[in-house]
Amino acid sequence: MDLEKESKAVDLSHHLSVVSRARKTSPLKGLQKYFVKPGMLSLAGGLPSPAYFPFSSISADVLVTESFAVVPDEQSSTFSWFWKLFGSGPSTKEKTTTVTIPKYPTNPGDINLAAALQYGAAVAQTPLQEFIKNFVTQVYQPAYDDFSVLIHTGNTDGWNRIVATLCNPGEGVLTEEWTYPSAMSAMAPYGINPVPIAMDSQGMRADSLNTLLSEWDEEARHMKRPHVMYIVPVGQNPKGTTMGVARKKEIYEICVKYDIIIAEDDPYYFLQMGLFVPKGERSMSAIASTSTQKDEVQEYIASLEPSFLRYDYEGRVIRLDTFSKTIAPGSRLGWFTCNPLFAERLERQGETSTQAPCGFGQSLITRALLHWKYEGYIRWLRGLGAEYEIRRNFFIDCLAEEFLLQKGVGTSGVWRGCNVYRASAKNKKQLMQEKYAVERDTMFSFIPPTAGMFVWMKLHLENHPSFAQEDGETLEMKLWTQVAEAGVLFGPGWMFAPDAFSTSVMEENEVGHFRISFSNSEFADLKKAVTIFGRVIREFFAKA
Amino acid sequence: MDLEKESKAVDLSHHLSVVSRARKTSPLKGLQKYFVKPGMLSLAGGLPSPAYFPFSSISADVLVTESFAVVPDEQSSTFSWFWKLFGSGPSTKEKTTTVTIPKYPTNPGDINLAAALQYGAAVAQTPLQEFIKNFVTQVYQPAYDDFSVLIHTGNTDGWNRIVATLCNPGEGVLTEEWTYPSAMSAMAPYGINPVPIAMDSQGMRADSLNTLLSEWDEEARHMKRPHVMYIVPVGQNPKGTTMGVARKKEIYEICVKYDIIIAEDDPYYFLQMGLFVPKGERSMSAIASTSTQKDEVQEYIASLEPSFLRYDYEGRVIRLDTFSKTIAPGSRLGWFTCNPLFAERLERQGETSTQAPCGFGQSLITRALLHWKYEGYIRWLRGLGAEYEIRRNFFIDCLAEEFLLQKGVGTSGVWRGCNVYRASAKNKKQLMQEKYAVERDTMFSFIPPTAGMFVWMKLHLENHPSFAQEDGETLEMKLWTQVAEAGVLFGPGWMFAPDAFSTSVMEENEVGHFRISFSNSEFADLKKAVTIFGRVIREFFAKA
Repeated sequence: MDLEKESKAVDLSHHLSVVSRARKTSPLKGLQKYFVKPGMLSLAGGLPSPAYFPFSSISADVLVTESFAVVPDEQSSTFSWFWKLFGSGPSTKEKTTTVTIPKYPTNPGDINLAAALQYGAAVAQTPLQEFIKNFVTQVYQPAYDDFSVLIHTGNTDGWNRIVATLCNPGEGVLTEEWTYPSAMSAMAPYGINPVPIAMDSQGMRADSLNTLLSEWDEEARHMKRPHVMYIVPVGQNPKGTTMGVARKKEIYEICVKYDIIIAEDDPYYFLQMGLFVPKGERSMSAIASTSTQKDEVQEYIASLEPSFLRYDYEGRVIRLDTFSKTIAPGSRLGWFTCNPLFAERLERQGETSTQAPCGFGQSLITRALLHWKYEGYIRWLRGLGAEYEIRRNFFIDCLAEEFLLQKGVGTSGVWRGCNVYRASAKNKKQLMQEKYAVERDTMFSFIPPTAGMFVWMKLHLENHPSFAQEDGETLEMKLWTQVAEAGVLFGPGWMFAPDAFSTSVMEENEVGHFRISFSNSEFADLKKAVTIFGRVIREFFAKA
Repeated sequence: MDLEKESKAVDLSHHLSVVSRARKTSPLKGLQKYFVKPGMLSLAGGLPSPAYFPFSSISADVLVTESFAVVPDEQSSTFSWFWKLFGSGPSTKEKTTTVTIPKYPTNPGDINLAAALQYGAAVAQTPLQEFIKNFVTQVYQPAYDDFSVLIHTGNTDGWNRIVATLCNPGEGVLTEEWTYPSAMSAMAPYGINPVPIAMDSQGMRADSLNTLLSEWDEEARHMKRPHVMYIVPVGQNPKGTTMGVARKKEIYEICVKYDIIIAEDDPYYFLQMGLFVPKGERSMSAIASTSTQKDEVQEYIASLEPSFLRYDYEGRVIRLDTFSKTIAPGSRLGWFTCNPLFAERLERQGETSTQAPCGFGQSLITRALLHWKYEGYIRWLRGLGAEYEIRRNFFIDCLAEEFLLQKGVGTSGVWRGCNVYRASAKNKKQLMQEKYAVERDTMFSFIPPTAGMFVWMKLHLENHPSFAQEDGETLEMKLWTQVAEAGVLFGPGWMFAPDAFSTSVMEENEVGHFRISFSNSEFADLKKAVTIFGRVIREFFAKA
């Protein structure tokens, strides 16, 4: 890293919202020295005695960190799914170890229910705080030393708290052209509006961002220039693109110039999987590892696109991490990494909303992480990434079996610079069998994702026979409904427009998308879904 | 119940705040019929496969429901604490049963991690939803049938969501004269202000409420007449009073007249313990139970002061329940009971903030509740209430040993109608030993709480030698600091003023209180704390 900048968090206090400014530092501060005095008899709080917690101990069988291969082993993985269909086979014999959390600690500092299930500050239990701090230092390597980490109940809670901490009603938030609907829904009730920026193969475009900000006309827009950005740089939701180092540096510098705070929502960071390689060519990509274990960890970390934190010499990034994709969504546990000023305000806000995340979840996850240790957790994450790579490959292989895919490089709009696959009906035989006189028009195109869980599909509605008569939005929902009636549920594209939930009508060129998730279904069901989709879309595009 | 009113929720939609009105019903509503279609292949959500959840199963050792006696058994309880000090004895031999939650269900409908740890709606897992609905029906008996129950992550989250759902910036919220600080801190950043109502032995006074509302002067107050009330009717925090049936009906009718929504924050409902009986007279109160088990459950429920829900024929109550005091604070789990319109909005808000509460906690608590069953959980709650009664009695016994307590009935202010105990130095010997020339002035007075965890203590600062020179606020903090320096932490009284965190200065007659919690410390420490406090306060009040 060679930024040639002084890595020091600058004073960003002017960014705090009206709400956050009113959320004063606790007036108890002066009294707090007494709270931590050892041997103090505290009759101050409303704490139940742990003797009345009806849980004597909790335990968990935790998967071993080597549960999944680090080099995608497609055959064994698809086979395990096959076996699972019949209720037996390798996947039912998960290798686990048991961890237990007693009510009272055996040794001081041990995780225990008496502490984990008690009221406390809206921060992590100490062992989890230490684990996360070390993890961030090793993996994300922030550009300044005194960064804070603060737990929250998942990135949705995290973003909601950022909005209240930084945004005032009537302000705008910079977003990608297509984005995560829940993030927009959190802003809307407060009259905070998305300001979309064009995208390409790397996600948000730096040139478009710069143009928008430099030409910002407060009067014409009825809005001040935005000072907060919401961005999903890895496995962008819904588009699946991943932003590289150069683009991140460009965007960061623009944010410095226009004094913008970057909220980096990054749930798919460890589901990075590189470019898609078609089935026939794929064995080439699996390179046997020869390095030692410690080198391997560092090599793996180095292989991941760095976080914005790495270049955050001014402390203007609030990174959102979550255990939802790496442990389980029901963990309702994640964390902020940001400057101490913002962390203090976000903590104050937690105190009057969620308080500390659930003690059952916190202690079970912490116990598993401490059992695995840092290297073991990294090993788990690598295996997880490899599994999602297999899933992506399997799903696109299914598309390749069902459709004629033609690869090209996108030249315009969100497709610029991407490896685009255009899908048309496969062959005359298929067409004859189904008795539809479909021509070789492209029905849809897509970009294989480089991270995450989704394939973002663009429907070529201009090739639909009644395109002249019906608008794109109607056609999109007509096809979505036909696919659903046939038993397959996709995400309708309009949901991912930043202003989908406002009253504005979408531009014609924005309509006609599906977001398809390959993360959850069993392999046989993914295959079945693609077959059904093939039949329905060919029928949909058939000339009458 | 004989309300002679039509029990039907009225249209309360005009109460929704600007924020809540903007939180439109999900536009996915029309598409939702497909989400629940059996056999549907869903590739729509961003759900990880449960195969990647690293928890194969979780287990817990859960205390049996009979862990604590239902009739306060003071001797065995204080003895068990005595033994615990030496790390052995009865309390270490807790009787437990083991419950387990596997990743995949054995029978359909079983609680399982594959479902509990997955993304879902911001509502409870089905078995918990059913348990809570039945519990509310049996215990609180709401006055209308189509009430909704909706889980949240604890009453702090619940109240925060009520504020956003019902209040607009600049509005006022009716509160008790002394109240829970966190509830006030949640309102303050949005410019929502407390409007305190006088209290007496039953909590909020109906006559004061009526006068305030009938004489409301919008211009003089720079505020519209409030339309939301925040109230802690049982084990009032900090005052420890409990509101009876008659007062609740009076307050409800005033709320009907002035169209006010009642947020009933009721964490101490099952810690109701009746009037305090001094030590010598106490054995009289333990009446051996002769009724059958089922009768006992109904008798117990009937012995509790009813919730506002019981009289809520218009659906204007939002009740907040929490597992924090009945299971553990770290549960971060509780629920709203309210009309379906409000429940829908509160759910929408959950979707963009906390989502569903933690799946680890939800499934462990649900599993324990299903194991205990409704009657078993009631048995657990009865035992818990009895334990807190022992604690209250023990703590006040300690005060009676340390001070001369003189019982009387309060005649004015918050003390009106209460059994007030006035404390002065015990006897000449104590005074001589400590060489302070303290006279028999009252140093403090208090009302034994009828529910909850706290003793609210009024300092008689007018009897302090330098009362003429120093203001009450300074003296309160001087004594608080001296007690803390001596190793005992109390809650400073000023924190519980509704406007404690604003810039306004408190009225002179408001200052000079401590909130003392008897809920958490070991018995020996409670005794020790009272002894230390006795020494410090006698020294404090000593004539120089």
